[in-house]
Amino acid sequence: MNPPEHLMLPGPTPFPELVREAMGTPAIGHRGGEFKTVLERVFPRLKWLFQTQNDVFLLTASGTAAMEAGMINTLNTGDEVLVFCCGVFSERWAEMAELLGAKVTLIQVESGKINTVTSLEAALNVKNDYKAIVFTHSETSTSVLNPLKALCETVRKLATPDTLIFVDAVTSMGATSVPVDAWDIDIAISGSQKSFMISPGLSFLSVSPRAWRVFETCERPGLYFNFKKYKKAQDAFSTPYTPATHLILALDQALAMMETEGLTEIFERHARLRDMTRAGVKALGLELLVMADTDASPAVTSVRPPAGISVDAIRAGLKKDFGLIVANGQKELKGQIFRIGHLGYQFDRDIEMTLIALEKVLSDLGHPVTPGSAVSSARNAVQAAQKRPETVS
Amino acid sequence: MNPPEHLMLPGPTPFPELVREAMGTPAIGHRGGEFKTVLERVFPRLKWLFQTQNDVFLLTASGTAAMEAGMINTLNTGDEVLVFCCGVFSERWAEMAELLGAKVTLIQVESGKINTVTSLEAALNVKNDYKAIVFTHSETSTSVLNPLKALCETVRKLATPDTLIFVDAVTSMGATSVPVDAWDIDIAISGSQKSFMISPGLSFLSVSPRAWRVFETCERPGLYFNFKKYKKAQDAFSTPYTPATHLILALDQALAMMETEGLTEIFERHARLRDMTRAGVKALGLELLVMADTDASPAVTSVRPPAGISVDAIRAGLKKDFGLIVANGQKELKGQIFRIGHLGYQFDRDIEMTLIALEKVLSDLGHPVTPGSAVSSARNAVQAAQKRPETVS
Repeated sequence: MNPPEHLMLPGPTPFPELVREAMGTPAIGHRGGEFKTVLERVFPRLKWLFQTQNDVFLLTASGTAAMEAGMINTLNTGDEVLVFCCGVFSERWAEMAELLGAKVTLIQVESGKINTVTSLEAALNVKNDYKAIVFTHSETSTSVLNPLKALCETVRKLATPDTLIFVDAVTSMGATSVPVDAWDIDIAISGSQKSFMISPGLSFLSVSPRAWRVFETCERPGLYFNFKKYKKAQDAFSTPYTPATHLILALDQALAMMETEGLTEIFERHARLRDMTRAGVKALGLELLVMADTDASPAVTSVRPPAGISVDAIRAGLKKDFGLIVANGQKELKGQIFRIGHLGYQFDRDIEMTLIALEKVLSDLGHPVTPGSAVSSARNAVQAAQKRPETVS
Repeated sequence: MNPPEHLMLPGPTPFPELVREAMGTPAIGHRGGEFKTVLERVFPRLKWLFQTQNDVFLLTASGTAAMEAGMINTLNTGDEVLVFCCGVFSERWAEMAELLGAKVTLIQVESGKINTVTSLEAALNVKNDYKAIVFTHSETSTSVLNPLKALCETVRKLATPDTLIFVDAVTSMGATSVPVDAWDIDIAISGSQKSFMISPGLSFLSVSPRAWRVFETCERPGLYFNFKKYKKAQDAFSTPYTPATHLILALDQALAMMETEGLTEIFERHARLRDMTRAGVKALGLELLVMADTDASPAVTSVRPPAGISVDAIRAGLKKDFGLIVANGQKELKGQIFRIGHLGYQFDRDIEMTLIALEKVLSDLGHPVTPGSAVSSARNAVQAAQKRPETVS
């Protein structure tokens, strides 16, 4: 008998049992009173998680669609958009804006590096009246966490007042603090299979008053993602089109669990899991793609394999002997890194289990390890983390 | 103790037990080998159900989005579109085309009537070079089934050769034959919560070679619904963006059940349930919104309440005493009709249960009924149906 698969991916993440139960319930009418009471709980809790008074729309579609919803409701053909790129997902937003007819300016960094305030300042000194600027908070393909607070502050200081800030918070929302109002983010998006601890198929989108003003000038907003349709429906605790009912039943359970845990505790847990993972893999003699601790995502950690050992061999060993699923790199980073996800329904024991499994797999593949070093380093990191708690901004 | 709710809605429909089990399984990686084998079963079966060699794309989004995907990949601003309307959903396609910048010509009929070939011929005699013509096959809000085969033939006879035919097959696909290739339909769409017997959140879209040629001239196809992204991914048994994994696991189970039943048997069952429902409610002295049997949808039946009895009272009685959920009318038809859904995972016994419950509720509300007449009329209709089997076109 093989152990059941345990996902250590940067999404989807394991599901709580209550989520699985909700997913398996019988059919439910999406226009009935019972479902309305679910939406009456879900909508305010999404605002709580986004730390915002703005509208937060719930879309039946994945995170990519939420970003497109943000763009399709605000960008017209020929609008100029500045996109900060640091990996596969941020590059996707540049392609998306172009396919919607926008003129895109790209700021690239090499893999594993963050987008800096300095590069933003330089760009805004050349031109400060972009229609929109796009940041990816936690870049899932490399595991960087961009300095979003400082980037947003810089936009507000140097750019024209109606510049829209778009934020991909797909793997950061619910893993670290993304205070939409405090940081003055116009469009923030996230997806259900990340810190929300449920299956993919839902996404979330906050819309600021500034974004609403720009929406009024939008020439081709379409129907399915049309902000006005969502606003009208959600204000009445409904959805404009048939929603993914069972994913929302699952979300209802997950958000209740998150509220019980508390924002500060959720963010501390994710920071701790990141610190444990980084300390553990370093103790195994492996190199991290994101060198600086301050630049590391609380959702995922990218690790380079030792010289002479392939990513495929490590992933296969973790899967075969331990049922642990970690991710490969994407595109140019495929075969260059493996990625350990630690967001959502993950705990210290999951990281420790992954580290002792990794230690065994590496040892079997001929890489020298000091038995027990990974877990003990991880535990030391926990102690260090307790000395500098994360706080809600 | 109250009976559990049993949905007699025109979607969502009850779920088979295997579907519920699939929905409640643990998290699964959408880029792993296990999920790929699911897609290797699902994609060909969708083509089988659509009776087509065309691409059939699987979208993580609801049916409305599938129609918008069809339009967004083919229509440019200013394109002229002819939309045949016969209820709420067909009107939605007109609004959608307008929001995408198309110039829309509407052909309206009164509620409960079909769109006729005569009206199509008249429209095409005035102008025959529309970029696209939109038909709603089974209009869920009124319960008509439009004469789609004849309508498509007429377009091909009278319109310019590159005219696109869009078909809303949301409640007809899987309930009656919609042979996409034989009828030369360019874009046919449907949704998961209908005859597919699973929860909402997935939709399906077939794309003909003609539609692919038009796609090449599309100026703003966007990213999330971009045909090329789907084509590339699906040809490799993958999805371009994170899919709703658990809805797809459920779909895999449902499509296997449908294949086991067989297309002819599925269509015969739906026709029989329609005939039973219509015969039964008529035997109760109620009037149908769709008078002609030949115009009636196999998915849903719209019924007018007797004089002096409200739709709300009938729906409340069915829910309170029997746990049966039927739909109200929509928009202008709200309070004018109730709608009994009979698509998906529904059987003779579900119709008979609904009819005997309706008989009791009406009797309690003071409407004279002949006890047993509804079910016996329904059973007579089954015998009649056996004499004229539906066939796959």
